[in-house]
Amino acid sequence: MTNLQKPKLLSVDTVARSQLFTIESVSLEFSNGARRVYERMRPSGREAVMIVPIVDDHLILIREYTVGTESYELGFPKGLMDAGETVNEAANRELKEEVGFGAQRFTFLKKVGMAPSYFSSQMNIVIGEGLYPESLQGDEPEPLPQLRWPLENMMALLEDADFSEGRNISALFLAREWLRQQGRL
Amino acid sequence: MTNLQKPKLLSVDTVARSQLFTIESVSLEFSNGARRVYERMRPSGREAVMIVPIVDDHLILIREYTVGTESYELGFPKGLMDAGETVNEAANRELKEEVGFGAQRFTFLKKVGMAPSYFSSQMNIVIGEGLYPESLQGDEPEPLPQLRWPLENMMALLEDADFSEGRNISALFLAREWLRQQGRL
Repeated sequence: MTNLQKPKLLSVDTVARSQLFTIESVSLEFSNGARRVYERMRPSGREAVMIVPIVDDHLILIREYTVGTESYELGFPKGLMDAGETVNEAANRELKEEVGFGAQRFTFLKKVGMAPSYFSSQMNIVIGEGLYPESLQGDEPEPLPQLRWPLENMMALLEDADFSEGRNISALFLAREWLRQQGRL
Repeated sequence: MTNLQKPKLLSVDTVARSQLFTIESVSLEFSNGARRVYERMRPSGREAVMIVPIVDDHLILIREYTVGTESYELGFPKGLMDAGETVNEAANRELKEEVGFGAQRFTFLKKVGMAPSYFSSQMNIVIGEGLYPESLQGDEPEPLPQLRWPLENMMALLEDADFSEGRNISALFLAREWLRQQGRL
């Protein structure tokens, strides 16, 4: 819809800052003259990757403690891209750090955002195949237990209460679409 | 996996605060003795709703300016639940505020999280049907343009660059599963 005229940014001010987060207050004037002040996380420009690893007709998932929810969550390996890394390079590094495998082939599925009213976060979801054992030291405080989940029953993951994050659910469905297009499901 | 022993929370301190966000620094000791300090958004306990409205074999979507990405994004109506509201009550209110319809029937699909390493956010995704015109005044700065998208072609939404948020993508796939189970797709 090209006829939508974006609001004018009247001002952008940093209102709070921690080691990890910088919160901005943004004053806007919409095309109809309405003004609003919204808060957002300062855009970092740093994208992330999520890898759906497939080996022997199984998905590989990991369990990781997440302090936002104070629980162990089941999900696909993921992480922020480092400066200068391509999506595939970051995916291979994260896979080696979190799962102990490299991948010979990555297939890009989709770039997915998160709560864009507040965040500019973009996550590149890829399939990883042709796995070979190789580990890199990450910054994980404890080993991440792995789970192999049969492709033929992959949608049953939705019934696991520990598998409930939006981008993980998107990755599961996108991977199934891709496998079906390939005639593998 | 019941044998995972959660880390001990050694301390939780507020390190930054704005009108909307409170950032906490959490000091943890994992069961293997490893210590880490992580930052997270303070859990608010307030859940959200997202409504997939269906009318005349079409989905209804809205376009809304999102300051996190400084763009107009296409998505399903959504919003935070108010104190004391049920999921269906909040869904009906948001639908009236953002789309100008109430719904006679809601069907719960799934509760979905978002980046649980940092956030405790939980969004209840529901289908809304039996729509009737009724508006409530929301806090939107400008009217939200609506789009009706045919169910028979619903997956083509994934090719629209403006439809890319993880929970929206999850809602689209979950709605398709539900429609198929009903024999309606």
